[in-house]
Amino acid sequence: MSDFRFEILGRDGAGRTGIVHTGRGDIRTPAFMPVGTAATVKAMLPQSVRETGADIILGNTYHLMLRPGAERVARLGGLHKFCGWERPILTDSGGFQVMSLSKLRKLTEEGVHFQSHIDGAAEFLSPERAMEIQRLLGSDIQMVLDECPALPAGEDVIEKSLALSMRWARRSKAAFGVQPGKACFSIVQGGTFPHLRARSAAELMEIGFDGYAVGGLAVGEPQSEMFATLEALTPLLPQDKPRYLMGVGKPSDIVGGVLRGIDMFDCVLPTRSGRNAQAFTWNGTLNLRNACHTEDQGPLDPACRCPACRQFSRAYLHHVVKANEIIAAMLLTWHNLAFYQDLMAGLRAAIAAGRLQSFASETLARLDSRRD
Amino acid sequence: MSDFRFEILGRDGAGRTGIVHTGRGDIRTPAFMPVGTAATVKAMLPQSVRETGADIILGNTYHLMLRPGAERVARLGGLHKFCGWERPILTDSGGFQVMSLSKLRKLTEEGVHFQSHIDGAAEFLSPERAMEIQRLLGSDIQMVLDECPALPAGEDVIEKSLALSMRWARRSKAAFGVQPGKACFSIVQGGTFPHLRARSAAELMEIGFDGYAVGGLAVGEPQSEMFATLEALTPLLPQDKPRYLMGVGKPSDIVGGVLRGIDMFDCVLPTRSGRNAQAFTWNGTLNLRNACHTEDQGPLDPACRCPACRQFSRAYLHHVVKANEIIAAMLLTWHNLAFYQDLMAGLRAAIAAGRLQSFASETLARLDSRRD
Repeated sequence: MSDFRFEILGRDGAGRTGIVHTGRGDIRTPAFMPVGTAATVKAMLPQSVRETGADIILGNTYHLMLRPGAERVARLGGLHKFCGWERPILTDSGGFQVMSLSKLRKLTEEGVHFQSHIDGAAEFLSPERAMEIQRLLGSDIQMVLDECPALPAGEDVIEKSLALSMRWARRSKAAFGVQPGKACFSIVQGGTFPHLRARSAAELMEIGFDGYAVGGLAVGEPQSEMFATLEALTPLLPQDKPRYLMGVGKPSDIVGGVLRGIDMFDCVLPTRSGRNAQAFTWNGTLNLRNACHTEDQGPLDPACRCPACRQFSRAYLHHVVKANEIIAAMLLTWHNLAFYQDLMAGLRAAIAAGRLQSFASETLARLDSRRD
Repeated sequence: MSDFRFEILGRDGAGRTGIVHTGRGDIRTPAFMPVGTAATVKAMLPQSVRETGADIILGNTYHLMLRPGAERVARLGGLHKFCGWERPILTDSGGFQVMSLSKLRKLTEEGVHFQSHIDGAAEFLSPERAMEIQRLLGSDIQMVLDECPALPAGEDVIEKSLALSMRWARRSKAAFGVQPGKACFSIVQGGTFPHLRARSAAELMEIGFDGYAVGGLAVGEPQSEMFATLEALTPLLPQDKPRYLMGVGKPSDIVGGVLRGIDMFDCVLPTRSGRNAQAFTWNGTLNLRNACHTEDQGPLDPACRCPACRQFSRAYLHHVVKANEIIAAMLLTWHNLAFYQDLMAGLRAAIAAGRLQSFASETLARLDSRRD
């Protein structure tokens, strides 16, 4: 089994391309991780996710701990076997969703008590329990538990939250222990305050992690603010460890993140949009519900090799969207994930060829050309 | 292009196995036709439908005339191209669904006026229009328009309806005209009155059709009554033409139909059940919602080669059903369609081997062994 390590194959400006080696296989970077919240990338079979080009998917600790339960998944042979995906899986720590989905939260130094949004059951998550759950799931890249303050928040709130998150990161790392082939990533917090981001990064680097995520961005702030935060932050992070921008994003966010040295991304946007009639193409986004597609015999995106584009017309996709047919979600999700993976492949090739800047400019111009 | 013709390869008792040749390919009989109401077999991609073993699918004239519209489908290249299924398609005439789905019906000798259940628009269906729609769709097997009386109904009502249906059958045949490689099937009506069924069959045979469907069964009557009706009817139908039992049915209905000389079936049961957590297996039906499956690591059906059975456990299927994930509908629909096609393959092989009766008895005993 391969040890966990990050191999950088090429650089272009701040951008990097490489391979994250794990015990379950390689992840080509920059990488986009489709979100498989409840042990399924919604509306996709695992082999179809792989066909889009994904090397890794993401699972949500919060959802899986509530249903079917981490101990149950372990008894059933682990998350990979359970959900039919044998390649790497990254799990989040559950912290973000405890804040956004659960009811009656009570935060202490020890951890967070909350009620399940499914059945109201009393639940508890601490750094140690979050890591135990991720180990039970069999996750290949495990995230430390951090505290996610509700935003917008002032500097004092962010600073206090950050201090707690740093103590939790230390406990998370200790709980992770030694797991050959697997990784423990920490999460840089600090809002849009550069000195807090820097302090967070320094403290986490002192503890030492296999990778560094950037949390608390893409939560409603302007894209320029997110980019400014990344520009200040990524030079402070270790050059030889993967950097993961959590929950991001739109295609232009990803291009901008790669330009600023980010290696990994995840976002529900391609899958959620696919269930909502929205398609990403190299010439911008399309809403298949719009009447302009009613008799359009052309493919969604002539450049794409996914089943939605190879076998069906825009007119058909419009029809199944209007008729609320499940195949609409299946085809548009597949297309959007294929588009995201094609975008990542384009970014990797551009970095390797030393033409990241021009690829980014051309891509951003094309992506902006249509939005309906 | 092959002419439309029915080739019988083997007989066993009243059962037959053979091939329906069409301009778009062969249909092995006895055949089960998955229902693709609105230009999609719900929750399935066309290639997946084919992988289950289906040679033909069914489209609903009523739904397609309302949305996206027959003329539109024709402008888009026909139903096969539109929905990505290049093999044979049978379309019904719309008569049954006008009675069951539409609002404010008004029946005349000429046809039926009704309101669309989608947007309330005024619509009209006559024998000539029903055949025109099916021709516009490009259907390979086109059904005559018949009148479907609301049941239960007395003999006088059935007899009057039957007389109208026979006049409509004649007009439908005339409207069908000559279409090489394609077929026009008529529909024997007459409720459970043997003399009316016999009269209907005789009149339709006098007109002369490429195939004979049996309508108005499986509408709530006991299975024994349906079988009795078939036993009296099928000997009266031409030996050399395919016989199609419309809207049927449960696995045991299909076995009983084949024993009584039926060649073709369609039913929403495998697809609808798949969206409702029910799975058909060789050892009976399972409801994946039931808690007994929570930690069951075994496959749905060890005899099945579909993705649901090869790649996932019952525990996983239970989980995605409980979580209302789209993959639950995708996997259980695929499995149910694969089961139905395996059942048809078993029936075909049994007839060819002259062991239909023992195959039927053994299968019915196994199917009855579990129902949860």
